[in-house]
Amino acid sequence: MPERIIIIGAVALGPKVACRLKRLNHEAEITLIDKDTLISYGGCGIPYYIGGDIADLEGLYSTFAHAIRDKEFFRTDKGVKALTGVEALSINRKEKKLLVRHLNDKIEEELEYDKLVIATGATPVKPPFPGVDLSGVHVISNLHHALAIKTSIADGKVGHAVVIGAGAIGIEMAEALTDLWGVETTLIEMADHVLPAALGKNISAVVEKELRENDINVLLSQRVVRINGDKDNRVTSVETTETTISCDMVVLAAGVRPNSEIAKDAGLAIGRYGGILVDPCMQTTDPDIYAGGDCVEVKNIINGQSMLMPLGSLANRQGRIIATNINGGCEHFKGAVGSFCIKVFGLGVAKAGLTFEQAKSAGFDPIYSMVAQSDRAHFYPDSDFMYIKLIADRNSRKILGIEAAGPQGDAVKARVDAVAPLFQYGATISDICSLEVAYAPPYASAMDIINNAANCLDNTVKGSHVSVDVQDFLEEFRQEKTRVLDIRSKIQAEPFVKKYGERWINIPQDEFRARVQEVPTDEPLCLLCGSGPRSYEIQVILAAHGITNTRNIQGGYAMILAVHGPLD
Amino acid sequence: MPERIIIIGAVALGPKVACRLKRLNHEAEITLIDKDTLISYGGCGIPYYIGGDIADLEGLYSTFAHAIRDKEFFRTDKGVKALTGVEALSINRKEKKLLVRHLNDKIEEELEYDKLVIATGATPVKPPFPGVDLSGVHVISNLHHALAIKTSIADGKVGHAVVIGAGAIGIEMAEALTDLWGVETTLIEMADHVLPAALGKNISAVVEKELRENDINVLLSQRVVRINGDKDNRVTSVETTETTISCDMVVLAAGVRPNSEIAKDAGLAIGRYGGILVDPCMQTTDPDIYAGGDCVEVKNIINGQSMLMPLGSLANRQGRIIATNINGGCEHFKGAVGSFCIKVFGLGVAKAGLTFEQAKSAGFDPIYSMVAQSDRAHFYPDSDFMYIKLIADRNSRKILGIEAAGPQGDAVKARVDAVAPLFQYGATISDICSLEVAYAPPYASAMDIINNAANCLDNTVKGSHVSVDVQDFLEEFRQEKTRVLDIRSKIQAEPFVKKYGERWINIPQDEFRARVQEVPTDEPLCLLCGSGPRSYEIQVILAAHGITNTRNIQGGYAMILAVHGPLD
Repeated sequence: MPERIIIIGAVALGPKVACRLKRLNHEAEITLIDKDTLISYGGCGIPYYIGGDIADLEGLYSTFAHAIRDKEFFRTDKGVKALTGVEALSINRKEKKLLVRHLNDKIEEELEYDKLVIATGATPVKPPFPGVDLSGVHVISNLHHALAIKTSIADGKVGHAVVIGAGAIGIEMAEALTDLWGVETTLIEMADHVLPAALGKNISAVVEKELRENDINVLLSQRVVRINGDKDNRVTSVETTETTISCDMVVLAAGVRPNSEIAKDAGLAIGRYGGILVDPCMQTTDPDIYAGGDCVEVKNIINGQSMLMPLGSLANRQGRIIATNINGGCEHFKGAVGSFCIKVFGLGVAKAGLTFEQAKSAGFDPIYSMVAQSDRAHFYPDSDFMYIKLIADRNSRKILGIEAAGPQGDAVKARVDAVAPLFQYGATISDICSLEVAYAPPYASAMDIINNAANCLDNTVKGSHVSVDVQDFLEEFRQEKTRVLDIRSKIQAEPFVKKYGERWINIPQDEFRARVQEVPTDEPLCLLCGSGPRSYEIQVILAAHGITNTRNIQGGYAMILAVHGPLD
Repeated sequence: MPERIIIIGAVALGPKVACRLKRLNHEAEITLIDKDTLISYGGCGIPYYIGGDIADLEGLYSTFAHAIRDKEFFRTDKGVKALTGVEALSINRKEKKLLVRHLNDKIEEELEYDKLVIATGATPVKPPFPGVDLSGVHVISNLHHALAIKTSIADGKVGHAVVIGAGAIGIEMAEALTDLWGVETTLIEMADHVLPAALGKNISAVVEKELRENDINVLLSQRVVRINGDKDNRVTSVETTETTISCDMVVLAAGVRPNSEIAKDAGLAIGRYGGILVDPCMQTTDPDIYAGGDCVEVKNIINGQSMLMPLGSLANRQGRIIATNINGGCEHFKGAVGSFCIKVFGLGVAKAGLTFEQAKSAGFDPIYSMVAQSDRAHFYPDSDFMYIKLIADRNSRKILGIEAAGPQGDAVKARVDAVAPLFQYGATISDICSLEVAYAPPYASAMDIINNAANCLDNTVKGSHVSVDVQDFLEEFRQEKTRVLDIRSKIQAEPFVKKYGERWINIPQDEFRARVQEVPTDEPLCLLCGSGPRSYEIQVILAAHGITNTRNIQGGYAMILAVHGPLD
């Protein structure tokens, strides 16, 4: 009898396992089960559907060759049986049977399996404040939600929307609402910066600025207290700890939780974050049951801890491994380093590894560099600033994390993707100093920004570079706790000298060696140049003259512009 | 007495060593020596200056902050003495003295050093055929050449140019001449494909097609026999083994040779390719003499052999290491994997590691996959095909090389840069199958093209995927040695069925499982779909039915279009 494989869930990982397994074993009887009737879709594309980049809902469940990925497609094209509108209720592990219910007629039946794959995904968290069930309050977890949101906007019923949660989905939704539809959009986040799980300060400030410049009303460090409705139970406003925002629509983007109930009920091991635990072969604690995708926990390669990482890319890669292993192979999923990217209006953002704060929590002694540099040879047209934050452990010099942003998203992603695979090998600062990235003037500088981010970190670890974080500097300067020594040209520095008087000293770099005795030695100075390296050079010269109470503003004036805008 | 460091050569590595070393040791007396008066320039930018992307020559030797990098700049801004117009003649290692000649007054002097750095770069090869010294025949090795070429074109004196050598510089020059100036340009290469040192077949064919479509006359497998001139010794034509091309200008881009004479004369070890040999600390066989940049040989990390790799990026990274080590540090340059990228009109191209042929020569048993896939989520607007060739060793499954091309150059580079650093760790096909590259629909597919290139290679190594190279297929089909089984839709296949009759069979994928008995079994078939994966699926089905004399066309019809254009 051919092997019977049942897969619960038919969005990303499920179909991947099914199709790959059928290719490996033509005889296998493979059944895909899903509660929904719409299956095998690109859930990550929902914001782009709502924002109009993708015209039709079908675009999200069509193949590259424009075939609709429905039940019939799986039968004819893939040789896989898809049962849609069917809910998996419970697993009888002893008898290897899955109890399911057909949602249209409520009929239940038991399906026998030789191997079972749990690909149940994750469900958006509905926070516990009142009003989450009002009409007009949406989550984004499937295509029906997507259609509902787009329809109500297209009907002209939405003038002002509130998005709760400034993670990836919240930000993508805020952009979608604003960009195509001109909906006035407020983004509320309880953390003190956007993308709090992905980014630390600085790069998140660059993102926040991009959001504000595109008319998103960003509210940080505010908790939602309740959502208010009218007598028809239609949403009217969102109340936070500090304010009330009138609105006609709310999108809840407060994270997701793994759909692991069926696994838990069957006695399979569940992790601390509620995800199903799997070994590197993607097997659960029952060797006949595999699991993958948004419903499992994955190992964070950097700190060894378990984490949730709901991403279609991981689901696809895990799906291939599961299929190989069910077929008798032995491929391992080693874990993840949290590679992530997002487009935020005209800005590309990417990261991998731990943020500075996460590294601290994980017991490291982190140190970072923050570099602003041209994303291609500076003499090449269309070059623009890119911003990279590189984080390492002070003692071991091991790289722990990288965050990057810039207008050329593919170029931003290139830097992060080049570093991310090295975490597993314990790459150090020195390895990134001479990281061999491809070079040609249209695509990079000879000393690439990624090399310079590591060079800067190397200088910092070794103590020759003493820096101040740009956001800390701005706060100190605002409070008049520090003076600036600006080594840019007179013409660049003049407006600041005029405005800030003796708090802003200008000695241009080309005059500096001759005028070093003019530098005041009685108080701390923050050193400034266009983007950081020249003022570092000045710091070294000052140190050689015994003046050591200086700190170099990381990323220089470019970074001030990126996180704050022109000084006022 | 402060330490005296002399650096011969002030283009890329020399200035990097000088400035970094001065930052590390403020007391050091550092002297940069160069024959030329123009120094510290971005030589890689020359084609972009000639092509008009960079308006002024000064753009190539200005800093990001628009300071001109001349003698005075090095003195005031960097605290480094630059002697320009001074030629280094010989090294007296015993007495640690360098003999130099001031070119303006021919006066010679001896300079004492504690440490010497050789950064003499490389010189363009002048091939041994007659006519290389005619007026109008140029090499590209410094800014004077660049200015001479641009001036003569701008004066309207050049209608037709011949570029000899289709390496990176040859191609960049051909583009520069054509794109801005509309010069009719012929590119002559003695190898059978363009970028022969960097690329194998397929990806080089994509580049060649891009060149032809932009009106470059590409002549392959032709040796230049002589360059002819008129009575005023002005170039008139280039004669190859097969043809004669009239022209008013010739650019020799036949490679470079390291300037290692001064090192050789001083008894330092020289490698098989004429480059100075250095250890991982970048020290020559004399511990007081360092060398780096285009004049040294570097270790190829993949095959352990020595190679030349004249790139400004390597020079900069090596320069930093040399400065650190002269200052008593201990940083290692581990070698290189040959990461390379180039913009060719609207195409971005990148590679790292060995080509298929190079891998064979190095004693590996190479195998490759050739994948065409969307460079972002296929449902995302502006997605376009990217092409990746991934090469591995059949037995060890270790990745040996990657080549990529596509219209989004930064995205192409991202894939290559993500794989290149893994060579040193012996990454295998499986590692690339689950390589964790960042994912969001605007920048990637959930199963990224790099993952799929590895998946395809995995299937090939394991024997389930039996493929035919697209260029081999085109040749066999032309010779009527194979038939095509096209599993695309009827509407897509119809024109081909009409044109090729029984040599082109169409059974659409969605009908295939029902019509499998229609497949002829009496002769070999090449399987075709849009880009390769669906026809692979068909191959597996056929194999399950006992039909195994099939080969899948790598990259499908997309790859046919990319290397050849529409079938005629």
